[in-house]
Amino acid sequence: MEQRVSLITLGVADLPRARAFYEALGWKASGFSNQHIVFFQIGGLAFSLYGREALAKDAGVPGRDPGGGPLMALAHNVRERAAVDSLLDDASAAGAPITQPARDTEWGGYAGAFADPDGHLWEIAWNPHFPLAADGSVTLPG
Amino acid sequence: MEQRVSLITLGVADLPRARAFYEALGWKASGFSNQHIVFFQIGGLAFSLYGREALAKDAGVPGRDPGGGPLMALAHNVRERAAVDSLLDDASAAGAPITQPARDTEWGGYAGAFADPDGHLWEIAWNPHFPLAADGSVTLPG
Repeated sequence: MEQRVSLITLGVADLPRARAFYEALGWKASGFSNQHIVFFQIGGLAFSLYGREALAKDAGVPGRDPGGGPLMALAHNVRERAAVDSLLDDASAAGAPITQPARDTEWGGYAGAFADPDGHLWEIAWNPHFPLAADGSVTLPG
Repeated sequence: MEQRVSLITLGVADLPRARAFYEALGWKASGFSNQHIVFFQIGGLAFSLYGREALAKDAGVPGRDPGGGPLMALAHNVRERAAVDSLLDDASAAGAPITQPARDTEWGGYAGAFADPDGHLWEIAWNPHFPLAADGSVTLPG
């Protein structure tokens, strides 16, 4: 796994409330945002606010919602679809439970997730909408 | 608050175990790491593994340890000490509880923390050891 993070996703209970909070601090949401997810470009990666229940479902940990404290996931995007499978295999070999086996996603990509030894969630994703630069940085579309 | 994250910190129960996991995935820890915290450079920001109990204490949420699910904090580093106070004031004005009032830290900086509307923790820090580039990116020393 390359040493980088593509996306930090915070699970939120009320998307308009969460968006308003970050906007009140001066952040500007990307036009790529929609009613289900709000994106912010932060340097070479992306930051998103996403419904907590949807995040838990996507990461394969529905039991963490409700309850269980704040829910967050890191994503590591890869350049080729097949790299999702190989990285999940690597994580599994390193002892990580695969919380979400790789599958085609409704947003047109291919992704799965694992939990690190302390339960921190990592989504491994091939996302054709988010091109990766040579240095691995991500730029939101639009 | 500038639209950036300086440091992603994952709370861990067993630092050598957590470090070994990320190293097994191919990541290389920074020489700036020590027995209490392990740093990785990830593009223009830093990623760290830190004792869960210490993280909860630093962020002013000792009640989240033990229990409460995985504990994580984002840090936003500022260029001047006084900016810590002004950013915490901004967060408070936006409705965020200040979980850790600004104070001198044992590592030679000045920092405080707030929780966003969903309980996600943000440390606002002036850290003289981590210089910020003009674009806000952080490079680990050494």
